[in-house]
Amino acid sequence: MEITLIGSGNVATHMAAAFKNAGHKIAQVYSPNYQNAALLAYHVGATAIDNLNDIDPQTAVFVISVKDDAIAEVAKTLSVYQKLILHTSGATALLPGANTGVLYPLQTFSKTKEVDFSQVPLCIEGSDEQITDLIEQLARTISKNVYRVDSAQRKILHLAAVFACNFPNALYAIAQGLLAEHQLDFNLLRPLIMETAQKAQESFPADVQTGPAIRRDEKTMNNHLQLLNNQPELQQVYQLLSQRIIKMDDAIKADK
Amino acid sequence: MEITLIGSGNVATHMAAAFKNAGHKIAQVYSPNYQNAALLAYHVGATAIDNLNDIDPQTAVFVISVKDDAIAEVAKTLSVYQKLILHTSGATALLPGANTGVLYPLQTFSKTKEVDFSQVPLCIEGSDEQITDLIEQLARTISKNVYRVDSAQRKILHLAAVFACNFPNALYAIAQGLLAEHQLDFNLLRPLIMETAQKAQESFPADVQTGPAIRRDEKTMNNHLQLLNNQPELQQVYQLLSQRIIKMDDAIKADK
Repeated sequence: MEITLIGSGNVATHMAAAFKNAGHKIAQVYSPNYQNAALLAYHVGATAIDNLNDIDPQTAVFVISVKDDAIAEVAKTLSVYQKLILHTSGATALLPGANTGVLYPLQTFSKTKEVDFSQVPLCIEGSDEQITDLIEQLARTISKNVYRVDSAQRKILHLAAVFACNFPNALYAIAQGLLAEHQLDFNLLRPLIMETAQKAQESFPADVQTGPAIRRDEKTMNNHLQLLNNQPELQQVYQLLSQRIIKMDDAIKADK
Repeated sequence: MEITLIGSGNVATHMAAAFKNAGHKIAQVYSPNYQNAALLAYHVGATAIDNLNDIDPQTAVFVISVKDDAIAEVAKTLSVYQKLILHTSGATALLPGANTGVLYPLQTFSKTKEVDFSQVPLCIEGSDEQITDLIEQLARTISKNVYRVDSAQRKILHLAAVFACNFPNALYAIAQGLLAEHQLDFNLLRPLIMETAQKAQESFPADVQTGPAIRRDEKTMNNHLQLLNNQPELQQVYQLLSQRIIKMDDAIKADK
């Protein structure tokens, strides 16, 4: 397929590479910043443009991967060409119109870190059954994990991803801070972080919870809270998440 | 070395296997529950006992891996033999006495899941320099990652491990719950969880934070809070961690 990419951020970069590796032709890469467009375009053998008026309408599909707030306007501009228009946003509903769809990769991307795109879950949605089938075909050329997900479900996924990715990372950063304050090497915690994520690959997290809260080990929890005496916000995080663990455990036990 | 293990839980089980693989002899395994002692003893070619009076005093070192509350009493009972007595607890100070030490593995263990023990950070402490050297030698036979950590630092590590392991898992469980409520497959999130932990192996988490909070994307945060309208506790977690991310980012920027 001939694909035009609107955007040159992390998602656009990784998706462009995946499309190219799968044998698709990237016709153009658009970014309002020409240098950004040119860098990505160079990597995938496309033409860089920084003005939507320079769009080549001969493309089969436009993939919009820009900030959520900018999607609607870009889509409106492109709609005159009557081609398939996809966006890649988890937080944005299906675009209005007859030939629209979503290709939401549920992964965190950094520009500098390689990702095996074939393993990235791709959540797809289309404006009708035929469009959805077409998007599914396209999605399957770059990932083994394609899921049909409607806009309401996608919103939940986007929220859940904050709990599964952004917030755990914030907790890692808290741990990093505690270690740094006490001249301890962050490498001490890295295997633990990895193993915890690894466990979630094979189990359901609710079934493998460990730590003082699930043991109702009040003594250890009080000791921990005391160690955080000069950081009331961390005490709050500690208490709230410990309470959550206990409630979750109570609910599981009540279910059995 | 000839080692006697007091305890048959997850830590004792994994450590016993590591000792055995490193060529040490496990003399006895003690558990108040004979079946538990026997199961572990069988795996490592040791004798099982369920009464501390049956201890063979000819061992070189006792490794106590029991619940924190029970460590002191067991150690007192064993102290009559005047051998090296180690415990494996992150939350417990060095035992009193002349031949005591700590061998704290900073990892989460499940009985059913293999762990490459050579990668497990082992935090060691001894009652004097000579004992510490001896413990370090022993520790290096089973792990490549041995760190000298005093009791005050170990407490911090234990606390930090809650933030790096137990709390992220609780957040994974929240995400799991959100998906289940909306008939979504938890497999959708597993690659994201893995990649987030993977990033922390190569970067410092505070440097690679992503998500709506660090972008100050109020619109998305408000949408997320609205989706959690019927779960005020999750709203609280969401708000507290989002505020934390913003504060952390402000602090980093102020530092630059």
